[in-house]
Amino acid sequence: MLVVKKFGGTSVADKERIFNVAKRCAEDYKSGNDVVVVLSAMGKTTDHLIEMAKDINPNASKREMDMLLATGEQTSVALMAMAFGAMGIPAISLNAFQVVMHTTKKYGNARFKRIDSERIHNELDDRKIVIITGFQGINKYDDITTLGRGGSDTTAVALAAALHADACEIYTDVDGIYTADPRIVPKAKKLEEITYDEMLELATLGAKVLHNRSVEMAKKYGVQLVVRSSLNETEGTVVKEEVEGMESMLVSGVAVDKNAARIAVIGLQNQPGIAFKIFNLLAKKNINVDVILQSIGRDDKKDISFTISRDDVEEAVALLEQNKARLTAERIESDATVAKVSVVGAGMQSNPGVAAAMFEALFNAGINIRMIATSEIRITVLLDEVDADYAMRAVHDKFIPE
Amino acid sequence: MLVVKKFGGTSVADKERIFNVAKRCAEDYKSGNDVVVVLSAMGKTTDHLIEMAKDINPNASKREMDMLLATGEQTSVALMAMAFGAMGIPAISLNAFQVVMHTTKKYGNARFKRIDSERIHNELDDRKIVIITGFQGINKYDDITTLGRGGSDTTAVALAAALHADACEIYTDVDGIYTADPRIVPKAKKLEEITYDEMLELATLGAKVLHNRSVEMAKKYGVQLVVRSSLNETEGTVVKEEVEGMESMLVSGVAVDKNAARIAVIGLQNQPGIAFKIFNLLAKKNINVDVILQSIGRDDKKDISFTISRDDVEEAVALLEQNKARLTAERIESDATVAKVSVVGAGMQSNPGVAAAMFEALFNAGINIRMIATSEIRITVLLDEVDADYAMRAVHDKFIPE
Repeated sequence: MLVVKKFGGTSVADKERIFNVAKRCAEDYKSGNDVVVVLSAMGKTTDHLIEMAKDINPNASKREMDMLLATGEQTSVALMAMAFGAMGIPAISLNAFQVVMHTTKKYGNARFKRIDSERIHNELDDRKIVIITGFQGINKYDDITTLGRGGSDTTAVALAAALHADACEIYTDVDGIYTADPRIVPKAKKLEEITYDEMLELATLGAKVLHNRSVEMAKKYGVQLVVRSSLNETEGTVVKEEVEGMESMLVSGVAVDKNAARIAVIGLQNQPGIAFKIFNLLAKKNINVDVILQSIGRDDKKDISFTISRDDVEEAVALLEQNKARLTAERIESDATVAKVSVVGAGMQSNPGVAAAMFEALFNAGINIRMIATSEIRITVLLDEVDADYAMRAVHDKFIPE
Repeated sequence: MLVVKKFGGTSVADKERIFNVAKRCAEDYKSGNDVVVVLSAMGKTTDHLIEMAKDINPNASKREMDMLLATGEQTSVALMAMAFGAMGIPAISLNAFQVVMHTTKKYGNARFKRIDSERIHNELDDRKIVIITGFQGINKYDDITTLGRGGSDTTAVALAAALHADACEIYTDVDGIYTADPRIVPKAKKLEEITYDEMLELATLGAKVLHNRSVEMAKKYGVQLVVRSSLNETEGTVVKEEVEGMESMLVSGVAVDKNAARIAVIGLQNQPGIAFKIFNLLAKKNINVDVILQSIGRDDKKDISFTISRDDVEEAVALLEQNKARLTAERIESDATVAKVSVVGAGMQSNPGVAAAMFEALFNAGINIRMIATSEIRITVLLDEVDADYAMRAVHDKFIPE
């Protein structure tokens, strides 16, 4: 059996943890499996490198930033190979050049195009544990690229797909995927299984366990993922295409996003094409718009409200103010004290009562809903940030059996 | 004009120094030259990485050690490219994979075989400053190798040869090559020029300004070197094939090696082949033998004395003790309180009086000579370490005009 195991930066932050990881992988190896290990940079290395770079040039070229950051994972994999060496287990570290891991050319946010598997298979055939740098690749100019934050998950999935691995295990500092963040909802339960689509909705909504792109890739190539703890032997959560007994659990998770802001464009003329103009403006600046609400105001005028990430508020407001006349808007309002609470569940596709049940739970809890948006497997409500945690617990109580 | 400029770890140890180097290179660039910059790892980075490795595995594989150490120079070159960026000067960093710098396969002590110049020329043609990782290469397995300590000098010379550079400048923390270590001989003078052969003798003898192998390579490929300070604008010393006005300066340098030890193998049978057996034993263990003295002792028995590095004393004595019977030796003695003082000068080839003058100077200073060795351009005497500094000054006074 060929197993890809990915460990994040916290799991390799110091000597003790490096040996912990090595021991875990050694068990697998000794039981006869072929083991490929994907590592992130140690602890806060990446942050530290970024600081050094910003100090020298706050607008450093992304190409050089990737050249710099790639040293972080190379350090991890070399030290891990030494740890295996100390344990008498044959191992070899490989960076993106050595594999080769081909990506698109975009620095700082590249995507995998193709992964050569020959060298890895050769090393595995020699019964070595193969340790590979996460997060990085090589573009067509022979330059180093990085995949963006959390990209090591994607590396693990891409390798699992390229090597036709039998399992892809993502080790993290939590036991698996929970029905909600246990810090907010103490009754939250660990899921045994979850579908790719549910995981995607939860990842997008701020359950920071798995990198979104890695889930998309896993879905695309049918790579079954296991998310589990690097600190204990708990079973973890399997992420796969379909979950058996899916109907028994209508909702698989409740998520909160406290980085939301609401923008309102008020007093628009009631004429066609205004909404298009607004969202086209924002799209051109790469500002992602989420929940959208259009309402008829006084004097037959329209208001359009929507949510965006708080990081984009300043830019969005400035942009809309500049174009106020063209948009026929009276004024622009923004509010960064809102939050989004979502329930996600593949089961709700065939069960129309979920939305109603959610609104009932919130009503009973005395929480005011400001906007609503739904997808096939998700219902999101916008509410005041101060209500968010209480709302989470109310909704969780409603859907997740104790 | 194409110029290769090499800066050591001290010259890029922090932000301020990185910008210092960048400014220096920018002047050259702005005057119209093509500029290739070779960098070592910042400050104590390499030592720090070695410490981390030893902590995890004191006997770490050399392959993994090279994988680890190579991150040091990659960090330097990326940050330097960012510094040029901040100054508005187009620059690009390249590691050994990107160049490609082909080496022999030996980890930790590889030699250059071939350097591809295409990518570098392409970047220079785009009027970029090209910043290249020193100290490292790629072997035929696509694995990272390192050249051994001080290898960045060799990288600079190898690049100068491969690119047919017009100049190769080695920047260091001293103003150039001196007739002696100024800390020991305050009257020491900076040389304007020195031959490769003299530099090789001085480098071997412990004048740690230039890496020996880099001088050998410069001689082989006729690369004229300039050794100069990264801290000021002083002219520096040119290292080249022949020095004009050579006769005017009989001796170009006086060097001391305080890491010497003397081994004596005493009471050997006076039969052929004994010396061969001794030095063959040592050679097999890679122990370098320097000054050798054979003398007839009492009862027609022989003593053989020689010097080695102090690091090798323990191993050499153990080896000789094990083979005492086979060597017909009565006993082995060792003495690590000796030093070698040497005068070096291409001029002495045609002037037989140098040795006599040196001995006279030492005799006048009341210093006892324990062994003597000579090459075409060098005379070395072994003496007690306590006498070394005084001997240096006496010999320097004799040969170097004030």
